[in-house]
Amino acid sequence: MPATIPIKPFLDDNFLLDNPTAETLYHAHAKDLPILDYHNHLSPADIATDRQFESLTDIWLCGDHYKWRAMRAAGIPEQFITGEASDKEKFEKWAETVPFTLRNPLFHWTHMELRRYFGITELLNAKTAPGIYRHCNELLRTPEFSARNLLRRMKVEALCTTDDPADDLRHHRHASEDGSEVKMLPTFRPDKAIFIENEAFPSYIETLGEAAGINIQSFDDLLQTLKKRADFFAAHGCKLADHGLEQLPAEDYNLPTVDAIFKRKLAGQVVGGKEAGKYKSALLYELCKIYAEKGWVQQFHLGALRNNNDRLLAQIGADAGCDSIGDFPQAEALAKFLDRLDREGQLAKTILYNLNPRDNEVFATMAGNFQDGSTPGKMQYGAAWWFLDQLDGMEKHINVLSNMGLLGTFVGMLTDSRSFLSFPRHEYFRRLLCNLIGRDVHDGKLPNDEAWLGQIVRNICYFNAKNYFHF
Amino acid sequence: MPATIPIKPFLDDNFLLDNPTAETLYHAHAKDLPILDYHNHLSPADIATDRQFESLTDIWLCGDHYKWRAMRAAGIPEQFITGEASDKEKFEKWAETVPFTLRNPLFHWTHMELRRYFGITELLNAKTAPGIYRHCNELLRTPEFSARNLLRRMKVEALCTTDDPADDLRHHRHASEDGSEVKMLPTFRPDKAIFIENEAFPSYIETLGEAAGINIQSFDDLLQTLKKRADFFAAHGCKLADHGLEQLPAEDYNLPTVDAIFKRKLAGQVVGGKEAGKYKSALLYELCKIYAEKGWVQQFHLGALRNNNDRLLAQIGADAGCDSIGDFPQAEALAKFLDRLDREGQLAKTILYNLNPRDNEVFATMAGNFQDGSTPGKMQYGAAWWFLDQLDGMEKHINVLSNMGLLGTFVGMLTDSRSFLSFPRHEYFRRLLCNLIGRDVHDGKLPNDEAWLGQIVRNICYFNAKNYFHF
Amino acid sequence: MPATIPIKPFLDDNFLLDNPTAETLYHAHAKDLPILDYHNHLSPADIATDRQFESLTDIWLCGDHYKWRAMRAAGIPEQFITGEASDKEKFEKWAETVPFTLRNPLFHWTHMELRRYFGITELLNAKTAPGIYRHCNELLRTPEFSARNLLRRMKVEALCTTDDPADDLRHHRHASEDGSEVKMLPTFRPDKAIFIENEAFPSYIETLGEAAGINIQSFDDLLQTLKKRADFFAAHGCKLADHGLEQLPAEDYNLPTVDAIFKRKLAGQVVGGKEAGKYKSALLYELCKIYAEKGWVQQFHLGALRNNNDRLLAQIGADAGCDSIGDFPQAEALAKFLDRLDREGQLAKTILYNLNPRDNEVFATMAGNFQDGSTPGKMQYGAAWWFLDQLDGMEKHINVLSNMGLLGTFVGMLTDSRSFLSFPRHEYFRRLLCNLIGRDVHDGKLPNDEAWLGQIVRNICYFNAKNYFHF
Repeated sequence: MPATIPIKPFLDDNFLLDNPTAETLYHAHAKDLPILDYHNHLSPADIATDRQFESLTDIWLCGDHYKWRAMRAAGIPEQFITGEASDKEKFEKWAETVPFTLRNPLFHWTHMELRRYFGITELLNAKTAPGIYRHCNELLRTPEFSARNLLRRMKVEALCTTDDPADDLRHHRHASEDGSEVKMLPTFRPDKAIFIENEAFPSYIETLGEAAGINIQSFDDLLQTLKKRADFFAAHGCKLADHGLEQLPAEDYNLPTVDAIFKRKLAGQVVGGKEAGKYKSALLYELCKIYAEKGWVQQFHLGALRNNNDRLLAQIGADAGCDSIGDFPQAEALAKFLDRLDREGQLAKTILYNLNPRDNEVFATMAGNFQDGSTPGKMQYGAAWWFLDQLDGMEKHINVLSNMGLLGTFVGMLTDSRSFLSFPRHEYFRRLLCNLIGRDVHDGKLPNDEAWLGQIVRNICYFNAKNYFHF
Repeated sequence: MPATIPIKPFLDDNFLLDNPTAETLYHAHAKDLPILDYHNHLSPADIATDRQFESLTDIWLCGDHYKWRAMRAAGIPEQFITGEASDKEKFEKWAETVPFTLRNPLFHWTHMELRRYFGITELLNAKTAPGIYRHCNELLRTPEFSARNLLRRMKVEALCTTDDPADDLRHHRHASEDGSEVKMLPTFRPDKAIFIENEAFPSYIETLGEAAGINIQSFDDLLQTLKKRADFFAAHGCKLADHGLEQLPAEDYNLPTVDAIFKRKLAGQVVGGKEAGKYKSALLYELCKIYAEKGWVQQFHLGALRNNNDRLLAQIGADAGCDSIGDFPQAEALAKFLDRLDREGQLAKTILYNLNPRDNEVFATMAGNFQDGSTPGKMQYGAAWWFLDQLDGMEKHINVLSNMGLLGTFVGMLTDSRSFLSFPRHEYFRRLLCNLIGRDVHDGKLPNDEAWLGQIVRNICYFNAKNYFHF
Repeated sequence: MPATIPIKPFLDDNFLLDNPTAETLYHAHAKDLPILDYHNHLSPADIATDRQFESLTDIWLCGDHYKWRAMRAAGIPEQFITGEASDKEKFEKWAETVPFTLRNPLFHWTHMELRRYFGITELLNAKTAPGIYRHCNELLRTPEFSARNLLRRMKVEALCTTDDPADDLRHHRHASEDGSEVKMLPTFRPDKAIFIENEAFPSYIETLGEAAGINIQSFDDLLQTLKKRADFFAAHGCKLADHGLEQLPAEDYNLPTVDAIFKRKLAGQVVGGKEAGKYKSALLYELCKIYAEKGWVQQFHLGALRNNNDRLLAQIGADAGCDSIGDFPQAEALAKFLDRLDREGQLAKTILYNLNPRDNEVFATMAGNFQDGSTPGKMQYGAAWWFLDQLDGMEKHINVLSNMGLLGTFVGMLTDSRSFLSFPRHEYFRRLLCNLIGRDVHDGKLPNDEAWLGQIVRNICYFNAKNYFHF
């Protein structure tokens, strides 16, 4: 390109916006909308207690396995990542790593978060680390930087945490009674009831039974318990369920066999393979009927291969940054499972998330098979999840959804995050969405009709989710 | 980009053409060439009888499962899609859906088709629907809009329909005797003879036998029958065979076993799984030998997962818009099947179509393994098929073919369509092809040599197919 | 785009560089660095003897199965490819094919190689073939075009060939004693000891034993032999091992069973399937422990489906241009195999190469699971390999590595080639790398900081490899 096209400043007002149409769509239609963060892993306790954070390491590095992975790859010893080193040392090591994260989403997130929350426009690196650390820590000690104020600052209108069915939801109750204007709703995520292979399964079932006041002795007891807990969640405003699975389980089964498998596991025997598959298929199917009855939205997060590093699993536990993208077959089980529910009139509104981008097209077209005209975008494909939650991954998601589904009915972005500082990801999504549409207008692939396209943008960023989830 | 680069008008003369080189390649080399539509699903009867259509719904919406899927996703009830509603109501509901199809191929197709056939430059939506419906219906009643005249308007020189071996081809005969200057040739597609699992298989075999005057009692009878039908098709100008399969069947088998399997099915027993695989492997292999002997081109459409929605299958039948992209392993069976034919000197010219874009590279490189120097591009990879028949899918196809094969030998695009209004897809393909080449020239990745590149474009758009298929 | 943006000349000084930032990064930081070609298939004998080549066909076409595939696809009979035709005729046929390779990496490679080595700026085609052939052949006869001088001309500082453990490495010794300033190091590639299914396996084991002076009768003997050969390779400067596999073998096994399988094969029995898998799993695991102990870097080239064309395999042998991309599952075996080594503290520095680009994200994230902070980029994903070693494949590789790993720790490009004329691929890589980074700067996605980004570029092009391999 000729020298007359100037270099765009990094992270300026028109960040990610390549042309005037994109700029208009973002600034006039997307930027100021509130946030509906319908799936994340924030701590309900932090919100209920309106937590203050001790340091930038505390709020930003502890618990962020994305950063941990990057630090390990940069050659930083574990001591400075999840180990004994001080908060200050850990922050310095992270700062040293940042320049190596160029072109990784961490580079954009890092600088957006420093800028949007703390007003820092410098780049983070070894040299700038001390000043930035000091400045942010000072701010974090002020009331303006409490958990709830961080959410207010980002105009978060509602958010959905991810909760175990055995949870007593007292933090949700507390926050709601408190009159916080940020609506915090629980999400029903019964993964621990699904993973019958786990050693801890029987003791979890006991805990779950206690939460419901039921002594679980049979598969039927389990279903009664989960129904009761779903009622409890619904009474606390729950509108979504969620499942994390490698593949949708769609084995053939009969209930007496499933009951026997369940009882054998409770009796201390090992259950795995085909048997575990039958149990999971049965339980998930029964759960989905509950979701349909309640009018909830069910979410399936499919395709992660988790806990690949036994050494770090033993040392740190799960979510240590040793999960990766798997390459499981997905299509046939998805079709079989969803078709059964659809045939029986039991298919709830559904969001299908996939982790391997090679399967984008399978998921997008599979969702299309079960659209039934009852709700715009009843079957949602997306949003881009985890490793795919970055510029390239989100653009690919939007492009596949556009080509193989209806972009106009998309319910938009979520943070999926454990961090109170991750909300600029909504801004990031809105910018790139506006840019894709603006670019098409600019290139003559879409008509230049701001009223129509602005409405589409507003819908995807806010109104579709509002209507779909009934927030 | 700076404001000095103006917004390109939607769908103007240089639609999809990003620079002057691309414009020249398209306007001077591609635009005016006739169309060889070597694979579609047009109704031979409509061409033979030179059908007039009753309404825009009749010609455009009935039978178009792409539009049905979009309407269901937009929340339109089935009644207005494939149900009892009037043609006018259905059209209105489609018009309401169109604005939500932005960035979907339907958006471009819709407006190109309205423009090229009916001269409509407005965008279709709820407001413009009545006027457009009235205008198009008036035109459709005139002789200029008969089936054949629609083809003439698009300069269709030859087209290949998709036909069952039991078909009597009277419409092809009729159209040919009629002196229509649009050559309509049949394609031999024996899917029903392949799918031995189907309940209707025995009755189909009876029908097939009747068409050939053979009482089919054995696998050998079946082969004799199919040979006879292939002779009959050849006598009617057939030059291509076609198969729709999830994967190429490449099981080991022996003929006595296959014969026994076939007979058991005719006797009313259930055949599936491994047995069905052996039967299919044997039959497909024998069919491919017939194709090689006749000098036909064999086509394999691989990778669709069909009829996923039992409810709509029962209600509407197959091709209801409930098919999706599958994720089957492909490489090993492809290699085994093609290698056997090659080794025995029985490998006909072949076109491999894949539906899952994740397999683009597997298919492109697999084709390369069996190029034998006998014909330029003997083994064809592509074109982009079904869900991939859109800007992104076709660009990816062309890029993979370029990188892993020889773009210069590609036989180009086809409609694969049931609709007489779908021929602007050739224009669409030609534009994006010229754009990819023009962009490379512009960026210094290809020499700026119009004579050479123009010839390449003309070959891909017309002459390669003419030579390859002997039209 | 408006006409004011001029067409870029093909293959000029700023080839592949789209903007001034990219130009600066390339010309000031990348261009002049020496080459560390850490993986190729050059002939050690050619380097030791400083071979002169007889003709352009001799150095350029013989042995290049990329060109063979293209010629077959263009319809050139085998006689002119690997057959009896004269060198001159073969060259002419290749020249005829070149114009059909537009947009294929061969088109860029061809013209870069003609330009960089021979100063030819014309395009190769049927018309220019005679003059180019004559000119190049004259140059090839001069001492400046000996094997070593060709390497010097490209500033090759070190290169690693690919060698069988039974090799006596006399060419490496000879070249080293010779005082050649191009360091030629062997790579330990024990594929023939792995592939127990092969008919020639027992005779290979005998050869291997002879090289070590050991009579191999048991699996333990085999391990002792391979250890001894690894010591021998290490003494000759070896720093890398390499394996070509469809998938990483990760079967459960016990050593007595493996020993029995090995002995049965030596006794002339057929070994395949699950048994072969156990043997491979055991042997590869033991080899990897040797590599860890030696501080070598282990390379795994995964995902090729080889020798698909039996006819050409019989006629020409392996590497005839009939290999393609496979579609094997990869993630679970990779995780299991690497985790075992990591858990036992035996995981050497590792480079994972994948051939199917659909698996890019699986490989990139899998590498991340085993980063342990001991070395920056201990686990390397990449570089783009074989069919992916082209503009699109390399850009995708770099983008995935950037998004899912740390680009800044990447050890950069290699030729993987059998040809002395293939070194401009390093230039190609450097240009496209600088362009990706420069484009991000230009678009405001990266800060405009030449000192930092120039260092990143220099590291990827040279210094990371220097440190990682200890060249």
